Amino acid sequence: MEIEHYMQIAFSLAEGAVGQISPNPPVGSVIVNHGRVVGMGAHLRAGELHAERVALDMAGNDSVGADLYVTLEPCSHTGKTPPCTEAILQAGISRVYVSTLDPNPLVSGSGIQRLRDAGIDVQTEICADLARELYPPFFHFIQTKQPHVTLKTAMTLDGKIAAFSGHSKWVTSEQSRLDVHRLRHVHDAILTGSKTILHDNPLLTTRLPQGGLHPIRVVLDTHLSTPMTSQVIQNTDAPTWIFCGSTAPEERELNFLPYDHVEVFRMEKPAIIVSDILDKLGARGIMTLLVEGGSSVNASFLQADAVDRIITYIAPRLLGGTDSLTPIGGINPALMSDAKDFVFIKTEQLGPDLKVTAVPKGSDSNVHRTH
Amino acid sequence: MEIEHYMQIAFSLAEGAVGQISPNPPVGSVIVNHGRVVGMGAHLRAGELHAERVALDMAGNDSVGADLYVTLEPCSHTGKTPPCTEAILQAGISRVYVSTLDPNPLVSGSGIQRLRDAGIDVQTEICADLARELYPPFFHFIQTKQPHVTLKTAMTLDGKIAAFSGHSKWVTSEQSRLDVHRLRHVHDAILTGSKTILHDNPLLTTRLPQGGLHPIRVVLDTHLSTPMTSQVIQNTDAPTWIFCGSTAPEERELNFLPYDHVEVFRMEKPAIIVSDILDKLGARGIMTLLVEGGSSVNASFLQADAVDRIITYIAPRLLGGTDSLTPIGGINPALMSDAKDFVFIKTEQLGPDLKVTAVPKGSDSNVHRTH
Ligand SMILES: [Zn+2]
Ligand SMILES: [Zn+2]
Repeated sequence: MEIEHYMQIAFSLAEGAVGQISPNPPVGSVIVNHGRVVGMGAHLRAGELHAERVALDMAGNDSVGADLYVTLEPCSHTGKTPPCTEAILQAGISRVYVSTLDPNPLVSGSGIQRLRDAGIDVQTEICADLARELYPPFFHFIQTKQPHVTLKTAMTLDGKIAAFSGHSKWVTSEQSRLDVHRLRHVHDAILTGSKTILHDNPLLTTRLPQGGLHPIRVVLDTHLSTPMTSQVIQNTDAPTWIFCGSTAPEERELNFLPYDHVEVFRMEKPAIIVSDILDKLGARGIMTLLVEGGSSVNASFLQADAVDRIITYIAPRLLGGTDSLTPIGGINPALMSDAKDFVFIKTEQLGPDLKVTAVPKGSDSNVHRTH
Repeated sequence: MEIEHYMQIAFSLAEGAVGQISPNPPVGSVIVNHGRVVGMGAHLRAGELHAERVALDMAGNDSVGADLYVTLEPCSHTGKTPPCTEAILQAGISRVYVSTLDPNPLVSGSGIQRLRDAGIDVQTEICADLARELYPPFFHFIQTKQPHVTLKTAMTLDGKIAAFSGHSKWVTSEQSRLDVHRLRHVHDAILTGSKTILHDNPLLTTRLPQGGLHPIRVVLDTHLSTPMTSQVIQNTDAPTWIFCGSTAPEERELNFLPYDHVEVFRMEKPAIIVSDILDKLGARGIMTLLVEGGSSVNASFLQADAVDRIITYIAPRLLGGTDSLTPIGGINPALMSDAKDFVFIKTEQLGPDLKVTAVPKGSDSNVHRTH
């Protein structure tokens, strides 16, 4: 088989762990000895074994003289676990194939250097396209200390998310709605506004046939008007973090006290500023944030230049209506040239719908390249 | 080579003639004698030779014992030209490959029957997918006597066609705007509203590097408020047909008299009804109509269930703005379920943009199938 074949398997292993390893990036590894796969592994939980170690443990003595494939540069510093470079050397691996360098510029390349210094043949930039698809959210967090933000919208082919009455059930198909639950599974947190809570009373949990991880539920609620009866308060499947302005009534905050899964974050200013939220979420280890807001919340993220990726589900339907609602509202720009430029990176058919993924222009090659 | 190879060439020939043969459908034909193409042809202008005749003339004596490929069933009735079935028989063709039957149920199959009766081997439904792409607009006209309507819209990924001020230059890329001119070339007529004329003062002609045919310009102008200074009046490259309500001021109609290329259609009712327009356009031989309206004109076609195809150019940009304009406005539907259902039939990347084509649900297999 080819080098790319084994690296693709390593990426599949890494993808399997997305959503469950924050604040670490996903990593997969495969060990091959004379054409036979002898070890496979992924990093499955923060604080536990790294991918290479899982694969090496599986391979045992078969790792002597074998090739090791890994999606991210092996670590060479002692963290919560001993460095993977030493484990690779001790196991007698002959060759190492790496897809992507460590994004931290201080250590980037040092793992590879350590292996080469010990006489191991190391090749890099294998399956760079897969790396560009998987890693940007995680590298974004490591580089900015803020979560990578994915804005999710769903609209008709004429750009409507709801009738003027607010009625929005259902814009897209069951297949698209299922895919949204996959998105929730792979994100650390999901964010919406209090208007959506009041109007739609969503659960904001992950509901998939084989189960899934629930993102932390983040509600932007300047005046703490989220009702105690709402599902995000009554349902305890996931933590709910409520962000309010500095002048939100104290007595309302007390109402949330009996709920152990609810935490109130009082901002320093009367208004909620997007970059302040992202700082606080980043400090709490949230690497990836899914924004499922209404027109106003979505607009505040766009205005703050805080949309790192947009995923839009487009239903093949036409609604019309001068006052029907659109995915992004907010302040009215004067000119079409005030629009923010993105780049389409993926278009898929999902049942009857289209799923379109775009990233800000200039950010589409944002993976840390190898030297 | 394969049967499909030659039929694909025949479709390319047919496509080359789209936009210049109304009220006839486009047809292409290829003649192959022992693996060598000996004749090719398309029907290039109404009243002139049919595709099969052009190809037969080119083949001359080489048509004896040859295979003839044709995108549409050969005619067997005497129209403006003698029937093609007789020409095929006289030329000594051995086998005939047909993609699609004649859409007219009264004659459908009779051309093939005539050939089979004369001992010719006829195969049908070759490249049915290409037929489903090419023929629906023309069959629609033949079956309904109304033009096939393509609604063209261009919007941002958040569903905006213009800022609230009306500023809309430019939503999409140069590549998409060029493609719109290709659409104009292949349509018999282009329709917009007087608001667009007043606001944007468009030429509505076809501007392509190698030239192109101009569609007839149709303006919906209930009160005849189109200014004499507008480009559709001052520019004489294409006819301009102005549709007004029954109560539009007579004196304004007189203003258009000096312009030979301008014709005023006074409706029987004070308001302009979409189905009345389509009847009048159909009666004048307009097979294909491209609607490039603003939010209101587009809405009136949607409300009248008169959108046979929608082509949407989506730019990878996000504008936002509660009052920004969207592709389809008009009356506000109360529920999302009031939306009209379509089916995506094609998605293409066009420079940075997406070009998405959809047809009403249930109409996507609308080509007349062979028996
Ligand atoms: Zn490691
Ligand atoms: Zn004919």
